[in-house]
Amino acid sequence: MTATIHQIPRRAEPSLQPLMALVADGMNSVNEVILGRMQSRIPLIPALAGHLIAGGGKRMRPMLTLASASLLGYGGSRHYKLAATVEFIHTATLLHDDVVDGSGMRRGKQAANIIYGNPATVLVGDFLFSRSFELMVEDGSLKVLKILSNASAVIAEGEVDQLVAQRQVETSEERYLAIINAKTAALFAAACRIAAVVAERSEADELALDSYGRNLGIAFQLADDAIDYDSDASEMGKDQGDDFREGKMTLPVILAYARGTAEERTFWQEAIAGDRNSDADLAHAVALIRKHEAVNATRERARHYAQRAIDAIAAFPASAAKAAMTEAAEFAVARRY
Amino acid sequence: MTATIHQIPRRAEPSLQPLMALVADGMNSVNEVILGRMQSRIPLIPALAGHLIAGGGKRMRPMLTLASASLLGYGGSRHYKLAATVEFIHTATLLHDDVVDGSGMRRGKQAANIIYGNPATVLVGDFLFSRSFELMVEDGSLKVLKILSNASAVIAEGEVDQLVAQRQVETSEERYLAIINAKTAALFAAACRIAAVVAERSEADELALDSYGRNLGIAFQLADDAIDYDSDASEMGKDQGDDFREGKMTLPVILAYARGTAEERTFWQEAIAGDRNSDADLAHAVALIRKHEAVNATRERARHYAQRAIDAIAAFPASAAKAAMTEAAEFAVARRY
Repeated sequence: MTATIHQIPRRAEPSLQPLMALVADGMNSVNEVILGRMQSRIPLIPALAGHLIAGGGKRMRPMLTLASASLLGYGGSRHYKLAATVEFIHTATLLHDDVVDGSGMRRGKQAANIIYGNPATVLVGDFLFSRSFELMVEDGSLKVLKILSNASAVIAEGEVDQLVAQRQVETSEERYLAIINAKTAALFAAACRIAAVVAERSEADELALDSYGRNLGIAFQLADDAIDYDSDASEMGKDQGDDFREGKMTLPVILAYARGTAEERTFWQEAIAGDRNSDADLAHAVALIRKHEAVNATRERARHYAQRAIDAIAAFPASAAKAAMTEAAEFAVARRY
Repeated sequence: MTATIHQIPRRAEPSLQPLMALVADGMNSVNEVILGRMQSRIPLIPALAGHLIAGGGKRMRPMLTLASASLLGYGGSRHYKLAATVEFIHTATLLHDDVVDGSGMRRGKQAANIIYGNPATVLVGDFLFSRSFELMVEDGSLKVLKILSNASAVIAEGEVDQLVAQRQVETSEERYLAIINAKTAALFAAACRIAAVVAERSEADELALDSYGRNLGIAFQLADDAIDYDSDASEMGKDQGDDFREGKMTLPVILAYARGTAEERTFWQEAIAGDRNSDADLAHAVALIRKHEAVNATRERARHYAQRAIDAIAAFPASAAKAAMTEAAEFAVARRY
């Protein structure tokens, strides 16, 4: 495969619109699977799962499975069920995240654990996770099963790693990248890669799509991290400043700490330890991050990964799918919410 | 298959010893897989998982996979990895149970969530669950994958169902049996059934082992329920009276409530609602259960299922495995701890 270098074009506003238009029909099929297979004889299960699933997520991961299949000219229908599988794994992870973080809000609504309690949220997460494996087994590809079961284990490892790093002000950029690679990028990578498996394409194509998804996932996560400290950001689904109050070491903090004065470092040590979490402390944190250009630097890092994602699929012939996936990577880092 | 009726013999003390002796060598191989595959680059994962895994559980489920394989004369080695898989699923479930129940003790030690916190306990459970699927995928049998992914989804449904039934004094015996069938018996059934798959035996043999495991699982659970209210019971791993304090409707309570006077029913309503959970209340509950012979009746129910388990494998030729599995069913209901 030869790679052509594409610069991210300077459009006014890159958008997810082309990606959403590309996969709109297919997403109807995926949503049918999602809604049909989250049912259970226990009414609490679809009620709780539906709160999150119907709650306005972008469904990036299943869209990426469908877009990747389109990029490869796949004409079958196996990818619908597998895309639903990926969304179930993601939803299970979000439910458990809400319990782990004790978050009050998710996607601009009360988080499931606030409404239904931690016990039900843990158990419905387990159900969705099990159901995702049932769906994969129905598809019957051991290769897909291997990719997704491995991604699931990597995600869980990444979540534990993040928990261990929580409130550890000495977390390095390298460690942080390893964490988001595991907890976020692994599922993006798997979502794209499985399209190459069902389309029966070469290992090189599998790896190209894995790389697109992985780099896009890192770009999305870093952009999210930047937004959480971006004082110019418009209203978000997630409460701004959540990362700060939870003592999460994300890249803006890692960079502001690394670039900070001794006095500033003392502030960060106290803040990340949980001893400074007032609104005034958050405002001070945002000011320090702005002083050291740490949001901008985080966005620059995100752009780097978005560019790698774009280049990972550069060798595929021009198509609506390729254009949409390219613009999705631009969108990942350009968005402000 | 013709069934011979076996009466449970009146031995002094049925024991797990024959089962443990039968599978001792094989369990060394299973334990190697368990210890090897619970490792991770994140040290907290083996530390937390090891707390429970090394914590003295009987490993009934993997023992049953090995015993079932022995019953069928299976001479291969695939069952070691699959038995470890079953134990990982079980361990993941226990970790999440501890979070859901807020239990302080497990197997006579502090529960993992007390030592490591709920967040880490949820996430390490997720890791073990994912790892179990990785192990299954390595084995490569879609039939085994189907059985175990289905069992996992059924377990999660059963856990949610139990949560919904918690503190509901009107829970019927039928509903309760459906709950323990899902949350306990399904994995016992799957643990036994997969041995028939790897041994490439008939559907009838698969179903016989499924039935043995399922009935044995119900018998074990009902006996556990009886023990939690048995005032003569010697010291247990689990704190006695936990079910009462958590407002769990188990069979002894269901029967005492059904057989109770109006006044007694009021007591149960208040107790199960959580308004009576002192030591004196527990003593009163135990007295009511004794008055209505509800522990004995629960043990009788358990004996019924143990007998069905024994009869499910009655048609297999006599062997050390058959004798050990038969005695395990007798042990399930005769034990007092």
